[in-house]
Amino acid sequence: MNTSTGTHTIDLNADLGESYGRWKLGDDDAILKIVSSANVACGMHAGDPHVMAHTFECAKKHGVKVGAHPGYPDLWGFGRREMVFSAAEIEQFTAYQIGAAKGVSTYVGHPITYVKPHGALAHLTRVDAEVASAVVRGIAAVDASLVLLTFPDGHAIRIARDMGLPTCAEIFADRAYEPDGSLVSRSKPGAVLSDPAAVAERAVRMIRAGAIEAIDGSLVPMDIGSICVHGDSPGALEMSAEVLKRLTEDGIEIKSFV
Amino acid sequence: MNTSTGTHTIDLNADLGESYGRWKLGDDDAILKIVSSANVACGMHAGDPHVMAHTFECAKKHGVKVGAHPGYPDLWGFGRREMVFSAAEIEQFTAYQIGAAKGVSTYVGHPITYVKPHGALAHLTRVDAEVASAVVRGIAAVDASLVLLTFPDGHAIRIARDMGLPTCAEIFADRAYEPDGSLVSRSKPGAVLSDPAAVAERAVRMIRAGAIEAIDGSLVPMDIGSICVHGDSPGALEMSAEVLKRLTEDGIEIKSFV
Amino acid sequence: MNTSTGTHTIDLNADLGESYGRWKLGDDDAILKIVSSANVACGMHAGDPHVMAHTFECAKKHGVKVGAHPGYPDLWGFGRREMVFSAAEIEQFTAYQIGAAKGVSTYVGHPITYVKPHGALAHLTRVDAEVASAVVRGIAAVDASLVLLTFPDGHAIRIARDMGLPTCAEIFADRAYEPDGSLVSRSKPGAVLSDPAAVAERAVRMIRAGAIEAIDGSLVPMDIGSICVHGDSPGALEMSAEVLKRLTEDGIEIKSFV
Amino acid sequence: MNTSTGTHTIDLNADLGESYGRWKLGDDDAILKIVSSANVACGMHAGDPHVMAHTFECAKKHGVKVGAHPGYPDLWGFGRREMVFSAAEIEQFTAYQIGAAKGVSTYVGHPITYVKPHGALAHLTRVDAEVASAVVRGIAAVDASLVLLTFPDGHAIRIARDMGLPTCAEIFADRAYEPDGSLVSRSKPGAVLSDPAAVAERAVRMIRAGAIEAIDGSLVPMDIGSICVHGDSPGALEMSAEVLKRLTEDGIEIKSFV
Repeated sequence: MNTSTGTHTIDLNADLGESYGRWKLGDDDAILKIVSSANVACGMHAGDPHVMAHTFECAKKHGVKVGAHPGYPDLWGFGRREMVFSAAEIEQFTAYQIGAAKGVSTYVGHPITYVKPHGALAHLTRVDAEVASAVVRGIAAVDASLVLLTFPDGHAIRIARDMGLPTCAEIFADRAYEPDGSLVSRSKPGAVLSDPAAVAERAVRMIRAGAIEAIDGSLVPMDIGSICVHGDSPGALEMSAEVLKRLTEDGIEIKSFV
Repeated sequence: MNTSTGTHTIDLNADLGESYGRWKLGDDDAILKIVSSANVACGMHAGDPHVMAHTFECAKKHGVKVGAHPGYPDLWGFGRREMVFSAAEIEQFTAYQIGAAKGVSTYVGHPITYVKPHGALAHLTRVDAEVASAVVRGIAAVDASLVLLTFPDGHAIRIARDMGLPTCAEIFADRAYEPDGSLVSRSKPGAVLSDPAAVAERAVRMIRAGAIEAIDGSLVPMDIGSICVHGDSPGALEMSAEVLKRLTEDGIEIKSFV
Repeated sequence: MNTSTGTHTIDLNADLGESYGRWKLGDDDAILKIVSSANVACGMHAGDPHVMAHTFECAKKHGVKVGAHPGYPDLWGFGRREMVFSAAEIEQFTAYQIGAAKGVSTYVGHPITYVKPHGALAHLTRVDAEVASAVVRGIAAVDASLVLLTFPDGHAIRIARDMGLPTCAEIFADRAYEPDGSLVSRSKPGAVLSDPAAVAERAVRMIRAGAIEAIDGSLVPMDIGSICVHGDSPGALEMSAEVLKRLTEDGIEIKSFV
Repeated sequence: MNTSTGTHTIDLNADLGESYGRWKLGDDDAILKIVSSANVACGMHAGDPHVMAHTFECAKKHGVKVGAHPGYPDLWGFGRREMVFSAAEIEQFTAYQIGAAKGVSTYVGHPITYVKPHGALAHLTRVDAEVASAVVRGIAAVDASLVLLTFPDGHAIRIARDMGLPTCAEIFADRAYEPDGSLVSRSKPGAVLSDPAAVAERAVRMIRAGAIEAIDGSLVPMDIGSICVHGDSPGALEMSAEVLKRLTEDGIEIKSFV
C-alpha cells in the first residue's frame, strides 16, 4: 500500500481507548492529533462501552480512522498474560470483540475499518500458526473487508493474505529490528529506542527506503503501511510528535491505509 | 404482524444461551425444537462467546430466528439486579451487546434480526421512559432494521414506534394479566400459571381473540406477535411443548415475526 | 477516642490501593507520608491482590495503620453505582472482602485493624438502616475487634455502637457541613472546599473545639476521631499536606485511632 | 495421619460451592452426607460470597470440615485454563482467596481448617516447583496451621513439608495410577474408572494396604490421608456413596484429617 518511489504516504497508528471506568490510561486527546489510525480496545482487556464510544467520537472529530483492538479476556492482566484457549474460542472471542467494536463505532457514526490484535494475543498470532488462523478466521467471518494491521513477519499476515483478507504491515517507531525483520528482544541492549530525533530520522529513512533498518544497519525490504508510534514508554507522546513532524517535513503524507 | 381473522401465525420465543463457561443453564436443544425465535444472551449478564456461537449455530440448524438479549453487566446477579446507569451508558452497553451478538451470529452465518431486553433492564424499559429511550436509541443507532421484541404496554414499545423502529409485542404464556394489560405482580396469588393444559388453552384463545385474557376474564385487545414460552419455573419445557401442540392442533402456524 | 481538652491527637485517613492491574490511581506513596490510617480497597470495586499486598507493605514501611475498604462488586462503576442486594448478600460480601483484606495484610505482616465502607455502599450505610445493619453484622461476625470508621451521623455508627462494635467518627476535610451534622449536598454552592489554607485552619479549629463547624458558622459537638484528607479533587494532595502541617504546628499529634 | 495397621480412619473430600449466582453446579446437599471434608471455591474461578456462605453453613450442619479451594482468577475458564502469573502474584491471590474463605467461614461460625488448590493451579503446584512454592508461601503467611491437602507426589507436598506446613495426601477414587504414583494421563485408556463397585473395592484395598494400587497391579506405599470422591463424571454421586458404603462395611471410619 506504499511504494518506495514518487509521493509517499504512511499511516501512523496508536493504541487508544485503554481506560476503564474510573481508571484513565493514556492521553488520547493528544495522540489523536498525531495519528491517522486509532486501535480501540474492545472491553475484554481494557475499554468499556462508554470509553469505546467516547474514543470513537473523538477519533471521528479528528478525522482519524478506527479499528478494533481485540485481546485476551483478562482485565487484571490487561491482555498481556498468555492464556490457554482453543482455536474455536479464539475465533469466537475475536468475532465477539470485533462485533462489539462495530456496534459501538456504528452507534457513534464512525465504523471501524480494520483490526489489530493486542498484547499476548498479538504476539501469539505472530509465532503460533494456529492462533493466527483462528484470529484471521474470526475477522473474515464477521467482515472480510476489515484490514488486518499487524507485524510484517510471522504467521498472521501470511495467513490473512492466503485467505484473501486485506492486510497492512506495521513497524514500531521505537523498537530495533533484527536483520531477519523480527523485533530485537526486549532483553537485549538497544531493543528500545528512546531518542525522539533519532527515532524520527530513522522512520523517515525506512519509509523512503521501503525497508526496515535493522540493528546492524542492513536494510530489509518490506511493504510498510503503518508506523505504530505510541508505546508505553515515558516520552512516547513527544516521540510520536517528533515522528509526525519529521515525516511531514520530508513531504511524506500521513494518511490511513484504509 | 398478526391479524385476528383468517389464517393465524404466531411466534414462540424463549431466552437461550444463558450458560456461561462451565455452568450450564436450560435445555437449549429441547427448547429449540419448540420455538421460532431464540433470544440469545450477549455476555454481560450471561453467555460467553463460545456459548453464543454454539447457540446461534443450533438455532440455525433448527431454522429458528435469533435475536440479541442484552442485559445489565452483572454476571453475579444474572442481570436481574437494578443498577444505576446514565442514559448514555445504557445506550452504549446496548450498542455494545447488539454489536457483539451481530458479530458472533454473523460469524456462524445466522445473523440476528431482533432485540429483546433482559431482566432488570427489560423491566425498566417498560416503566422508565428514560431507560426505554436509551435502549431504543442504542438499537436504532446500530441497526434500525432490528425489531424490538418487548412488552405490549409500557414505554419501550411506544418509544420504538415513535422512532420508527419495527416492533413486536410479546405476551408470557405462564403469567396472568391485569385488566389494564400489565402483568399481575408475582407477589399476588395466581400471578404465575402452572397447569400446562390450561396455559396452552389460554394461549390459543388469546391468539384467536387477538387479545390478552386478563385475570378477571376480560379481554384486552392487543396486537400480539409472540408468546414467550420459557420461564424459569420447573415444568417450563413441558408447558412450552403443550403450548406448541395446542396451537398447532388449532391450525395456528408457528412462525417468527421476522 | 479523642477529648476536647488537654493534649490532642487526631487520625488522618485516606482511601488507597485503588489501582487495578495496569491502571494506576492516586499517589499512594505521597499520601502515605501524610496519613496515619490507610483504607485499602478489597478487589471488588478496585484493588487486586497484588495492589493490595503492595499497599499494605508500603503502609507498614511508613508505620501507617491499615483498614479494609469494602465496596459494591462493580469494577466498571468503581463501587459508586447503587446496586440492589439483599441484606444477606451485603453481609456476605462484606465478610468476604474483610477476610480477603485480613488474608493479604496478614501475608505482608501488617494486619488490618479497622473497616471503612466505600462509595455507594458507604452512602447507604448512612441513610439505610437495613444496609447499615448488614455491614455491621458482616464486620462483627468476622472480627468484632475491628473498628468501624464512618460518618459521625447516620445509621451505621449508631447500629455499630448498639452492637458493641468499636467505632471512630470521621469528618471530611474538604466538605462543608449542615447545622445538623450532615454533609452539604454537592449540588449546593460551597459544598466542597478548595482553599488548602482555609481547609487546614478549619480542621484545627474543629479538632480544638471537638465539634463540626457548620456552613452557617454554628458548632456541632462531635467526638471526631479522624479526618479524611484525600478526596478526588485536584489539589487533594497539597491540601492533605497543608492539613498535616497546620495540625502539627498547632501541637495536635497525628495518630491512628487504633 | 493414617497408619496401615490397627483401626483405620480415612477422610473423604469433594469440591463444593462451585455454583455462581444463578448457575448451580453439583448436588452439594447430597455430597455433604457422604464426605468428611468439603473444598469450597473462593470466588475467583467459582463461588460467590453467597454461595460460599451457604456451603459453609450446610457443611457445618452436616459436621463436615471445610477448606479453601483457591484457583486461577478466571470465571469463564473455571480455573482450568493455564495462565501466566509471577510467583508473587500467585502468593498474593492465594493469600487473598484463603483470607476470603476464612472471612466467610468465620462469619457462619465454621472456620476453614485446610487448603486444597484447584484446577490448573493445582496441576502446576504438582509439576512446577516455583508455583508450588508460591502457593505454600501464600498459605503459610496467612495461617501456618492450615493443612495443605494435595497430591501425594509432586512439588507441593514436598515443599510444604520442608517448610513445616501440615499436609495431607489425597488419592482420587476414580483415577488410575502409574507405578510411580502419578496419575495415568486422561489420554490413555483406563485412566478414569467408572464402575462404582470396583472403585469402592479398590479404595478399601488401598486404605488397608496403605498404598496406591497402580494400573499394573503393583502397590506404591503411600501415607494416604484422604480420598477425593467427587469428580465431574456422571455417576460421581453414586460412586461416592458406594465408596462410603464399602469403607464403612469394612470398619474404616470416615473422619476428616483435621
